[in-house]
Amino acid sequence: MLDTLIIGSGPAGLSAAIYAKRAGLSLAVVEKNAVSGGQILNTWEVDNYPGLPGINGFDLGMKFREHADKLAIDFIEGEAVSLTPGSDAHRVKLDNGEEYEAKTVIIATGAIHAALGVPGEDTFMGKGVSYCATCDGGFFNGKETAVIGGGDVAVEDAIYLSRICSKVALIHRRDELRASNILKEELLNTPNITVYWNSIVKEIRGEAAVSSLLLENVATKETSELSTAAAFIAVGIRPDTAIVRDIVECDEGGYVIAGEDCETSVPGIYVAGDARKKRLRQVVTAAADGANAATAAADHINRH
Amino acid sequence: MLDTLIIGSGPAGLSAAIYAKRAGLSLAVVEKNAVSGGQILNTWEVDNYPGLPGINGFDLGMKFREHADKLAIDFIEGEAVSLTPGSDAHRVKLDNGEEYEAKTVIIATGAIHAALGVPGEDTFMGKGVSYCATCDGGFFNGKETAVIGGGDVAVEDAIYLSRICSKVALIHRRDELRASNILKEELLNTPNITVYWNSIVKEIRGEAAVSSLLLENVATKETSELSTAAAFIAVGIRPDTAIVRDIVECDEGGYVIAGEDCETSVPGIYVAGDARKKRLRQVVTAAADGANAATAAADHINRH
Repeated sequence: MLDTLIIGSGPAGLSAAIYAKRAGLSLAVVEKNAVSGGQILNTWEVDNYPGLPGINGFDLGMKFREHADKLAIDFIEGEAVSLTPGSDAHRVKLDNGEEYEAKTVIIATGAIHAALGVPGEDTFMGKGVSYCATCDGGFFNGKETAVIGGGDVAVEDAIYLSRICSKVALIHRRDELRASNILKEELLNTPNITVYWNSIVKEIRGEAAVSSLLLENVATKETSELSTAAAFIAVGIRPDTAIVRDIVECDEGGYVIAGEDCETSVPGIYVAGDARKKRLRQVVTAAADGANAATAAADHINRH
Repeated sequence: MLDTLIIGSGPAGLSAAIYAKRAGLSLAVVEKNAVSGGQILNTWEVDNYPGLPGINGFDLGMKFREHADKLAIDFIEGEAVSLTPGSDAHRVKLDNGEEYEAKTVIIATGAIHAALGVPGEDTFMGKGVSYCATCDGGFFNGKETAVIGGGDVAVEDAIYLSRICSKVALIHRRDELRASNILKEELLNTPNITVYWNSIVKEIRGEAAVSSLLLENVATKETSELSTAAAFIAVGIRPDTAIVRDIVECDEGGYVIAGEDCETSVPGIYVAGDARKKRLRQVVTAAADGANAATAAADHINRH
């Protein structure tokens, strides 16, 4: 029986582990992927985690992991597939059949990338369709590529790719970007990026691999074909909260409802990071959630 | 007229500056001390800011400051002495008479150390009385010293001093420490630290400098004299919020009341870090506050 089982090894989960360990709790972190870091692994440069400017996502993930390793925190490889709440202990089952019991559970499962849902997207996955410019951009050195989306990640991806690829198309369904001003400015000052405003992707086309996108201008309804070797899709995220959606209170988008203290509607179950319903999803706010959730878990254990 | 004026240059203020700058706001940071970092400057080792394990407080302060400098953020030297709210702009006056106008103000003034309030405390300030073991411990190399308090800072101070001083007395008014388990364990395993339970300091004694403490056992009312070359006082903190206490809603302790979004009762005025009423005051939660406050300030400006 553990004091706390942390599901997820992104900034929220690792911060929760650091705080739980320092509070003297017995704990383990369930890690689904081969590498710690969560979504930041898909980010080329994280420039707004205070104290570590301009670090790439992979390195920041490693720094969090090294911090956890320095405290000798246990990691369990696997994916949590079910959570059964109890009054004294909660039970978590992994995809490999293993079961764990813990007095408290911290859900730090984060969020995952949304799909476009257009023909060709699944067909060409890994053959030109990618959700991670940082991971896959290198395969398209000197080629023409496209990014779909208008938020921070889409704009960052386009800027990143502009240094690798000959030309980058940014395809955005609106006539304005949601990204921060500093990013917008950098984007618009990059000569080999062209923004396709008011445009949506109707189809991803190719034979062995992606060769073009069928675009539609949402204002004029005109269609056009854009030649590209890759479609980097950056159209948003959704919370990875399937295992708790029927157990704790969630909003209509699947985000777990909890205040700053990270306490869910079920005593002893906490949520930290992007899976929580909140205003600002950033590495530093995920890390703060981890600290708050672990502190709340320690308080819960002391009271019981 | 600035978009935002940030008062304070600890983790909350510097994080707010980083986020405000990246959001494209015009801004400046009012810095009271000669060095950035706030209270962490007084901390020998900060081991729970995720990603930077075992860093000393001064270095962590420098890392935050370097991050701000990389973004070319303006700093104003001085102490904010008054804040006059307005509907379109707020006015901040500094101790040197300078005045600044800003659409939004972020209060990141943090907290300051509490005093014991006993005879000798003021008299021997800088002559053996200190509120910062990290700053002043080195002066007492090989000598006997005392720490007063029972929280994380007091215990950390005692452990720090134990490596410099011949003997360390930890004087605590209760029979149990408030510090985290991991720290308590380390303390109790350090041979040259003696804990004086149920004990309070009645007087700090000396001639040119501190030479002893008059202790009282609160259970037995017996007094005793403890020979020591220094009294490191670590008995808590209070928020440094005098300039806003009559302007925005505060609790009885002077902490500014605001939720996770850091919005105070006055539109356009935000609070970030230890000055905010909240559960967990840590570097990482202060930094998250800064991100939230700057984001809220940017939203406020966009809406007006």
